[in-house]
Amino acid sequence: MPSFLAARALLPTGWAEDVLVESDAAGDIVAVTPGTAAPAARRLAGHVIPGVPNLHSHAFQRAMAGGAERRSPAGQDSFWTWRETMYRFVALFSPEDAEAVAAQLYAELLEHGFTAVAEFHYLHHQPDGTPYTDPAEMAKRHIAAARRAGIGMTMLPALYRHGGIFGKPPHEGQRRFLNDLDGFSRIVQGVRAAAGEDPQVAVGLAPHSLRAVTPDMLRALSGFDGPIHIHAAEQPKEVAECLAATGARPVRWLLDHMPVDARWVLIHATHLDDGEVADLARSGALAGLCPTTEASLGDGIFRLPEFLGAGGRFGIGTDSHVGTAPAFELRQLETSQRLRDHARAVATAEQNPHPGRTLLDAALAGGAQASGRRLGAIAPGMRADLVELDDTHPLLLGRAGDALLDAWVFSGQGNPVRSVVCGGKAVVEAGRHVHAMAIRDAFGVAMRRLLQ
Amino acid sequence: MPSFLAARALLPTGWAEDVLVESDAAGDIVAVTPGTAAPAARRLAGHVIPGVPNLHSHAFQRAMAGGAERRSPAGQDSFWTWRETMYRFVALFSPEDAEAVAAQLYAELLEHGFTAVAEFHYLHHQPDGTPYTDPAEMAKRHIAAARRAGIGMTMLPALYRHGGIFGKPPHEGQRRFLNDLDGFSRIVQGVRAAAGEDPQVAVGLAPHSLRAVTPDMLRALSGFDGPIHIHAAEQPKEVAECLAATGARPVRWLLDHMPVDARWVLIHATHLDDGEVADLARSGALAGLCPTTEASLGDGIFRLPEFLGAGGRFGIGTDSHVGTAPAFELRQLETSQRLRDHARAVATAEQNPHPGRTLLDAALAGGAQASGRRLGAIAPGMRADLVELDDTHPLLLGRAGDALLDAWVFSGQGNPVRSVVCGGKAVVEAGRHVHAMAIRDAFGVAMRRLLQ
Repeated sequence: MPSFLAARALLPTGWAEDVLVESDAAGDIVAVTPGTAAPAARRLAGHVIPGVPNLHSHAFQRAMAGGAERRSPAGQDSFWTWRETMYRFVALFSPEDAEAVAAQLYAELLEHGFTAVAEFHYLHHQPDGTPYTDPAEMAKRHIAAARRAGIGMTMLPALYRHGGIFGKPPHEGQRRFLNDLDGFSRIVQGVRAAAGEDPQVAVGLAPHSLRAVTPDMLRALSGFDGPIHIHAAEQPKEVAECLAATGARPVRWLLDHMPVDARWVLIHATHLDDGEVADLARSGALAGLCPTTEASLGDGIFRLPEFLGAGGRFGIGTDSHVGTAPAFELRQLETSQRLRDHARAVATAEQNPHPGRTLLDAALAGGAQASGRRLGAIAPGMRADLVELDDTHPLLLGRAGDALLDAWVFSGQGNPVRSVVCGGKAVVEAGRHVHAMAIRDAFGVAMRRLLQ
Repeated sequence: MPSFLAARALLPTGWAEDVLVESDAAGDIVAVTPGTAAPAARRLAGHVIPGVPNLHSHAFQRAMAGGAERRSPAGQDSFWTWRETMYRFVALFSPEDAEAVAAQLYAELLEHGFTAVAEFHYLHHQPDGTPYTDPAEMAKRHIAAARRAGIGMTMLPALYRHGGIFGKPPHEGQRRFLNDLDGFSRIVQGVRAAAGEDPQVAVGLAPHSLRAVTPDMLRALSGFDGPIHIHAAEQPKEVAECLAATGARPVRWLLDHMPVDARWVLIHATHLDDGEVADLARSGALAGLCPTTEASLGDGIFRLPEFLGAGGRFGIGTDSHVGTAPAFELRQLETSQRLRDHARAVATAEQNPHPGRTLLDAALAGGAQASGRRLGAIAPGMRADLVELDDTHPLLLGRAGDALLDAWVFSGQGNPVRSVVCGGKAVVEAGRHVHAMAIRDAFGVAMRRLLQ
């Protein structure tokens, strides 16, 4: 049974010293014992925090990160011109490419302290739109990549049927994504079979957005007993279209027409009116915030103070993967609030004056809720997902406890993550993924093909 | 004579291949020859760009980075509560501490691609406000730190006399900063003597802000034949106070009462009205933008599209050093614009659709102007400051030329800077400063003293 001895660890009760974390063969924590000396355990000399769940990923977009910045000839660039670029790019991926790019991404996520990823997966079919012989081929490639990298996964096959609200014909660039409910069921079945009893893999559902599915389709999925993720209110134009078509803004429409509760994750939820803020918070659903992507795409700034004030819950995701580090997602989330409000320490809670700790706690709890898995805390019954921050790193030197979390989240560009344990297995050592070279080589082959 | 052979280099005429860069013993470039094979030259196998000048640093604040995030008991935090924390912290520094912290900072800046720093230096005196035996003691410690790290420096002794606009009594926390013109002159003389003929060190002047100096003092400094840096319009409250006291906003006051021209750098210039945007651009002065600090402190978002549209010039600085990388300053600058405007590729120029390249070009030219030194381009007569980006790094793989700069500026958290040459000397190899360990050890000693 793998066991780890953390010099300091963040437990549900707070920071503790000399913490022995024991896990079983399946990778679940079976015992957490502070104040011990266990010479046989592997020693983690720094500050150990729970691995952070990443609640929103489109893995293939890692290959576009930094490659879709060029101004388009048509004039003013926006999310919508970016999406055109993405549609052209998505046509290029073979299953091998998708797996290689996802493995590279997942290794990078682990190196920065993410230990689980919710993969919002819509790249289902061949480039001409025909399903692969195995309709779950592409989803399985992502599961294989997660296993290769050793990251936990919630696979979220996406239902994508239309090209606009509600029921507009799809765009040609969307043909690899499209399914009716029957085709979608076949993919979900294939994914379930591939996940099997693996404690590192869970399955959820992802109706893509109100642009991509009809109310009937949403209702058909809404009885699912597990995570349901949906994009909502990322862009003002999307809000305007929904309002014109339905008389309601997207988040309002969801709240009024669907049984939105703690199973649901509304990805982005950037553009909310006061009533939506209050009612989304009250619903128990999560806001799935992707701060660096939302900044890159010019989406807008989430209403964090009002949402937290209403008791809202959120988690963080890296979405298009222009950022791949939990510390930077949390930093961008908080600093965008500061830029708008001319204030500091926006996200602190009554009980804790450290925004680094406050944001991390929220991301751990929210990410766990979004994953449909038992994780996000160093406690018995949770996955043994541990991130060791090197407290001798120049960014953290001399800091301890919650003040060290502030320094991690809010300062510098270096990466003080020294080692990462995921499901009881060491996957990052001395800051490097244990298979970094081999995964990078396969990524290089894929990138040469994709960018040729 | 040191010589370097770059596989690809960004020259004033654009990207070129197999570029031989030869420098003299003083560290100036004497010849740049594309399309050569020089087996005796040191080979830089990646993409080589000019070293980036950092136009705004308060080095001691590196020791506070990430340590001033805690919410203050008084309630809503802001720039002004942060400043109180800074005043308490500034009392702790010995000259040895200041030198050790600055050396660590400068090594980190080099590791991320900055090769020159304009040190806006106001920490002059002993903790009780008495000058050191050598009144330039602290300034000289910063010059020593720059020499130790091997970074180029423009030392900007700051004139700080008052605690509010114009002529209010100083705050007790400011006593280490305060000088009259005579005391200030002694410091400037000491700095000039220490700089001597060193081509790596230049000297400028820094009247701190309209809060800290009187109009007479500013006039006394305004004839200086070199860089003049001043903080202006960082915070709305500062604008309101200036307006109340003078009838003009701070940038307007400077434009109307001082000979503001290309010597001048207005640090932040965050809060500008339309007339200030146009007239600051027309003046030839620089906006000294510090995007990650401005986000951390909740200053606000610079009006970049209007300023560039009016022909304005800017450079970038890391100020409080919550960020230490040129790529991240440029990313934050552009993405804040995107968040405000719901747009992308905001900073592209007519002649170049790549925002990474456009922003880098501006930062190189602006940083050079702010430094009073010959740098910012790979060309004869310039300092031999070269930054090699590893184009086999997973963030840059498969990208080339301006598209590679986009990927560097806009994607990921890794650092693809492989080697850095400053003034003809290799100071970073394989991503690490050549004296990283020794500099870090001294930094650790200082941090333990400062944070005890």
